[in-house]
Amino acid sequence: MILNSPMIALNMKAYRESSGENGLRLAKICEEVFEESGVCMVICPQQTDLSLICREVNMPCFSQHVDPIDAGSQTGWVSAGAIKDSGADGSLINHSEHKIRISEINILIDKLRSFGLCSLVCTNNEAVSKAVAELKPDAIAIEPPLLIGSGISVSTAEPEIISNTVDAVRRIDKGIKVLCGAGISNGKDVKSSIELGADGVLLASGIVKAKDPKEVLLDLISGI
Amino acid sequence: MILNSPMIALNMKAYRESSGENGLRLAKICEEVFEESGVCMVICPQQTDLSLICREVNMPCFSQHVDPIDAGSQTGWVSAGAIKDSGADGSLINHSEHKIRISEINILIDKLRSFGLCSLVCTNNEAVSKAVAELKPDAIAIEPPLLIGSGISVSTAEPEIISNTVDAVRRIDKGIKVLCGAGISNGKDVKSSIELGADGVLLASGIVKAKDPKEVLLDLISGI
Amino acid sequence: MILNSPMIALNMKAYRESSGENGLRLAKICEEVFEESGVCMVICPQQTDLSLICREVNMPCFSQHVDPIDAGSQTGWVSAGAIKDSGADGSLINHSEHKIRISEINILIDKLRSFGLCSLVCTNNEAVSKAVAELKPDAIAIEPPLLIGSGISVSTAEPEIISNTVDAVRRIDKGIKVLCGAGISNGKDVKSSIELGADGVLLASGIVKAKDPKEVLLDLISGI
Amino acid sequence: MILNSPMIALNMKAYRESSGENGLRLAKICEEVFEESGVCMVICPQQTDLSLICREVNMPCFSQHVDPIDAGSQTGWVSAGAIKDSGADGSLINHSEHKIRISEINILIDKLRSFGLCSLVCTNNEAVSKAVAELKPDAIAIEPPLLIGSGISVSTAEPEIISNTVDAVRRIDKGIKVLCGAGISNGKDVKSSIELGADGVLLASGIVKAKDPKEVLLDLISGI
Repeated sequence: MILNSPMIALNMKAYRESSGENGLRLAKICEEVFEESGVCMVICPQQTDLSLICREVNMPCFSQHVDPIDAGSQTGWVSAGAIKDSGADGSLINHSEHKIRISEINILIDKLRSFGLCSLVCTNNEAVSKAVAELKPDAIAIEPPLLIGSGISVSTAEPEIISNTVDAVRRIDKGIKVLCGAGISNGKDVKSSIELGADGVLLASGIVKAKDPKEVLLDLISGI
Repeated sequence: MILNSPMIALNMKAYRESSGENGLRLAKICEEVFEESGVCMVICPQQTDLSLICREVNMPCFSQHVDPIDAGSQTGWVSAGAIKDSGADGSLINHSEHKIRISEINILIDKLRSFGLCSLVCTNNEAVSKAVAELKPDAIAIEPPLLIGSGISVSTAEPEIISNTVDAVRRIDKGIKVLCGAGISNGKDVKSSIELGADGVLLASGIVKAKDPKEVLLDLISGI
Repeated sequence: MILNSPMIALNMKAYRESSGENGLRLAKICEEVFEESGVCMVICPQQTDLSLICREVNMPCFSQHVDPIDAGSQTGWVSAGAIKDSGADGSLINHSEHKIRISEINILIDKLRSFGLCSLVCTNNEAVSKAVAELKPDAIAIEPPLLIGSGISVSTAEPEIISNTVDAVRRIDKGIKVLCGAGISNGKDVKSSIELGADGVLLASGIVKAKDPKEVLLDLISGI
Repeated sequence: MILNSPMIALNMKAYRESSGENGLRLAKICEEVFEESGVCMVICPQQTDLSLICREVNMPCFSQHVDPIDAGSQTGWVSAGAIKDSGADGSLINHSEHKIRISEINILIDKLRSFGLCSLVCTNNEAVSKAVAELKPDAIAIEPPLLIGSGISVSTAEPEIISNTVDAVRRIDKGIKVLCGAGISNGKDVKSSIELGADGVLLASGIVKAKDPKEVLLDLISGI
C-alpha cells in the first residue's frame, strides 16, 4: 500500500507556482526529498499535469480530485480510469475546495479501489470524519475550517479535534489512515500531529509558495 | 491565430481509448495527419493528459474545459492559467457534457484571451449561438441535440440549423468561427458543413473509437 | 416528537397533480386519513405550496428540501428559517432527486434541530445509511435504486438491504428512525417493511398519481 | 402584459423579515401601495410562500427562481408548472445569487412563456445583457456587481452601464423591458434610472429590511 504511517501528503493546488513547468520542478524537488529521506510521501499535482508528472517523477502521485463519472462520452471531467491511465496511485476526494455529494464519495471510493487506486477523503470535523469512515476509504484528512490558511498551529488550537477524530475513526475501522490537514507549518507541527495520533499530514501552500520548498520539506520531515 | 477556416477539431472526451498512453498515441496520429495534410486541426486531450500531450505533440491543443476559478488556493479545478502553463492554445467552453453559467462564459472568454488563449464555445441551437456570439468568443461549435451521437448526417437532418446559425453569428460578429459539432462521420459530412457556411467541424467518438483513427481522419480531411 | 413508529411519510414531489390547488386538495385528503386513522403521518408538499398547506392543513408537514444557506441576502433558495416560518415541522434532506454534499447534510441536520425542526435524510444503500447515521439525523429513509419507481416490492427484492440497514443504523444510534423509501405500493409492502424492522415508509407517486389517493392511503395504513 | 413601464419590482429574498407571516405582511403592504398608487409593481415572495401570497394578495407576483426541470418525479425543485399553479405571473431567472447555465435560461424563458408566465432575467454587465436579449426574455434586470448592496447610487456610479445596456438591448429587441437592479435606494435613484432609459427598478433589502417599508415604497414611487 502506498499510504504508510508516518506520511506527508502535498496538495499542489491550483497555484501558478505549481502548474506546468513550475509544477514539474516542484514535483522533482519532492522526489529528491522522498528518495533521500525514505519518508512516505505523496504529491497531488494539478489535474492538467498529472500524466506528465507521473511519467517524469518516480514517487507516489494522487489526483487532486476525481469526478463522479464513468470513462466514456464525457467532456472535461476526470474519471477514475483516466487517473489510473495517467500512472497515478490514487486521488483526493471531497477537498473543502471541491466538495461532493455523500453518495458520490461512496461510489468513488469503491471505483478507485476497483482500479487499485487509493482514496484520501477530506473532512471538516469529527462527525463528518466518522460518516466518511463508514464508507471505508484508505485515508481521511481532517481540515478544521478554523485552521485552514490561518497560520495557527494545530497543537495550540483544536488539538482535541485531531485526537478525538483519530479515536473515532479507529473505532469504526482501524485500517483507515488519518491525516491532519490544516494548521501545519513546520516539523514541530508534524510532530504534534503524530503525537495526537495522526498518521501524518496533508499540506499545501506552505510548500507550494515557499521560496525554498526543499528546505520547508526537510523541516517538516524532521518532525517525523 | 490558431483557428483558421477550414478546420477540424477533435474532442478526445473521457474514453479509456483516449486517456494516458492511448491518448498520447492518438494525439501523435493526429499530429502526423496535421503535418502531412497541412489542414488546420486542433485536438482536445483529456484534462489529465494536457501537459504531457502539449509537450510531446507539435500541433494545436485545447483543454476540454476550463473552470471559472482564478489560479490559487483551489483544489482539483483547472484555471486558465494552468491551461496556459500546460502549453495549450485554448479551451472548449460549455460543452453539452459540461455546461456552465452564462456569466462564467463571459468571464472565461475574456480570461482566456488575456492569456493569449482561444475560446471555442459549444452551443445547442441558433438562439444560444447568437447569445454566445454577443460574448465575442473566437469560435462557436453548434451541436444540435438531435444529431449528437445519432449517426445521422447534418446534411440530411437539420442542415438549416447550421446555415441559419452561421448567418446569425456572422451578423453579430464576422470574426467568430462557426463549427458544426454533431452529425459528422465522414468527408462528405465535412464537405456539407462547409457548404452550409461553417468554418469546419468538431468531432469526437467517431475518431476516438475508430479501429484506424488515421484512416478516419484522412477521410474527414478529404471533405475539405 | 413528530416522527413516531410506525409511520407513513408522503413525498408529494413536483407533479402537476400535487401543485397549487391539486396539492392543497391532496393534503386535505391526507389530513382526513391522518385524523381518522390516528396513524403517524407526514406530508411533504411542493416548495411553493409549503406555507399555504401548513396553514390550511392540520397535520405534520415537511419541506421536500432545504438549501445549505443562511436566511438573508439569497434569492430563490429555501433556508431552514423559512421552513420554520412556513409552519412546517421538518425537512427531507438529500433525496436521490436532490443530492447534497456530506458537509451540507451535517450542517443542515444541526441547523434544522436548532429551529426545532426534524431531519429525514434519504440514502441509497447500507454504507451511506451508516455514514448518515453518524451525523445524527432524526430519521433515515433508505431508497434502494433498483426499487425506485420499479413497481417491485421490497419484500420480494432486496429485503435484506432494509433489515441490514436497520440493524446497522441501530448499532450507531438507537434513536434514529429508519423508513423504507422504495418498493412500497400497498398495505402488504408496508407490513413487510415493518417486519423487516423499519419504522415506516416514505412514498410518493403511488399516492400522488392515484385516481383515489384516499383509497390507496387507507390500504397502506392497513399494513400497520 | 404584467410588466409595464415604468415599474418597480421587489425581490423579497430569503430574509427572516420576509418569510412566513412576515412575508405575508410585507406583501400586503406592497398590495396597498400598488392599489393606492396605480404604479406597475411586482413582488417576488420566498419560494415557500409563493402559493400563500398569490392567494392572499391581489397584485403581480413572481417566483424568485425556477428550476430547469419538468414537473414530475422531482423532489424539492420548483417547475414552471408549479409557478403557474401557485397563481404567480412569472419568475426571476439567473439572479446573481442563483446563476444558471445559458442553455437553461434559453429553455426556461420558452417554458415560462408556454405557461403564459413572464421572465425577468438578471444580468451583470452589458455583454451578458446583450447575450440574454438574444434569448428574448420579457425583461432584463441589470445588476452591476459594484453597486450590489453598496449603498452607492447608480446615478453617481456607472450611469453609463445602464444607458449603454438599455441601448444595446433595444437594438436587439425593442420589446424587452430593462430594469436597473442595483444602486437604488430612493425616489431620486428611481428617477435617475428612468432618465437613463430604464423601464424601472428591481429592489430588495432596502424595502425588506426597512422599519417602515410603506414609507420607503412611497418614496421610491415618487421618482416615477
